[in-house]
Amino acid sequence: MVGLGPGSPLDRTRRCEQAIAAAELVVGYRPYVESLADLTAGKELAASGMRQEVQRCRLAVLRAAAGQTVALVSSGDAGVYGMAGLALEVARGEGLLGRLAIEIVPGVTAATAAAARLGAPLMTDFAAISLSDLLVEWSVIRRRLEAAAEADLVTVLYNPRSVKRQSQLAEAAAIFLRHRPASTPAGVATALGAGDERVVLCDLASLLEQEVTMRSVVVIGNTTTRVLDGWMVTARGYRL
Amino acid sequence: MVGLGPGSPLDRTRRCEQAIAAAELVVGYRPYVESLADLTAGKELAASGMRQEVQRCRLAVLRAAAGQTVALVSSGDAGVYGMAGLALEVARGEGLLGRLAIEIVPGVTAATAAAARLGAPLMTDFAAISLSDLLVEWSVIRRRLEAAAEADLVTVLYNPRSVKRQSQLAEAAAIFLRHRPASTPAGVATALGAGDERVVLCDLASLLEQEVTMRSVVVIGNTTTRVLDGWMVTARGYRL
Repeated sequence: MVGLGPGSPLDRTRRCEQAIAAAELVVGYRPYVESLADLTAGKELAASGMRQEVQRCRLAVLRAAAGQTVALVSSGDAGVYGMAGLALEVARGEGLLGRLAIEIVPGVTAATAAAARLGAPLMTDFAAISLSDLLVEWSVIRRRLEAAAEADLVTVLYNPRSVKRQSQLAEAAAIFLRHRPASTPAGVATALGAGDERVVLCDLASLLEQEVTMRSVVVIGNTTTRVLDGWMVTARGYRL
Repeated sequence: MVGLGPGSPLDRTRRCEQAIAAAELVVGYRPYVESLADLTAGKELAASGMRQEVQRCRLAVLRAAAGQTVALVSSGDAGVYGMAGLALEVARGEGLLGRLAIEIVPGVTAATAAAARLGAPLMTDFAAISLSDLLVEWSVIRRRLEAAAEADLVTVLYNPRSVKRQSQLAEAAAIFLRHRPASTPAGVATALGAGDERVVLCDLASLLEQEVTMRSVVVIGNTTTRVLDGWMVTARGYRL
């Protein structure tokens, strides 16, 4: 189970590239498998579309159980809203988990990749929260947003908006505005590492005016986050 | 400002290795600079000890302002309890921030590296909280722990314990025990990627009996985290 990093081949780790090189079969969401073209010549590929996560994991598990060396790929980190947990659950469900030689290869997750493009907003304690309510009740997500906002945690929003999910980001922004000044720095990083990457620095008051898509990650600063010459920085408390 | 990943050269990204290769001067905490020996032949090195963070950043900033290509290195991700934010603050303080060409190179952070060794505990929303109260008031940290525990966030504790700081981990465990069952899975990953790496899976009730040092990261599951054949897995909600 291999995390590819957030988009550019430059953000892959050596461990990731070795795992792909060693694989006989590469399984994953089509754009991620296609992004590996430089490493997959001569290998069997199983690329599939959105919402095929369970099928992908089952294929990977069954082939591994049959003796094949399989790389199941995720963008970013394989264990952060990725395939690793689901694949372990599927393997367990098939009664195969104890029989497989599994390695999980961590990757650069979107939170830290977005942070690096914006500056250093994650220098102190932070939360990562997905606004997708396909798999988690919105009431649970809302409670987590409230907790993060109240406890002054810098917060990274994964899956902030999609064509079908528009209201969640507005509700999240409203929650943070009840706990933090409208001037709190915020950032939107879209299509990280891809050719059409866009990074926008704004504030909490104007967050909803920004273009936010399903390929975006949103970072909301805490009360010590400042903008310094165009960089979003959360002070960690050092005296200069 | 370059994140090296959590210990092993295998967890460096290509972007990291290119940045080190391009640098004339490499600045960092001594063990991290020494871990780069395979990439730093012929380069000027400025390796210093603990608590020299501000001096390291100042040196890097002043040399960069003088026209040198400088790599300021952090383990893990440069922006997660790393050097990136402090270096931006120092550059701003010196009046140099707008004059420097800065790139921040993200890396695999300890949270996701530890998670990968334990299984997939970060598959749903999580918080990263440092228990070090050198730079942040303990009352602030405690409030964040309470919020994370109450909102059922999986929680990664950075800097959980040191020779001088022993009580914080006990207080953190007590907070989580008020909100989660004693059987909640927890894990300790120590010296990730190093020769003496140790990974222990336990539960919240026995967390304090484990060996936890300043090189450890602790992961506390949420109410949906289970142990499946020795792997710590937080369900994301898929129906199998």
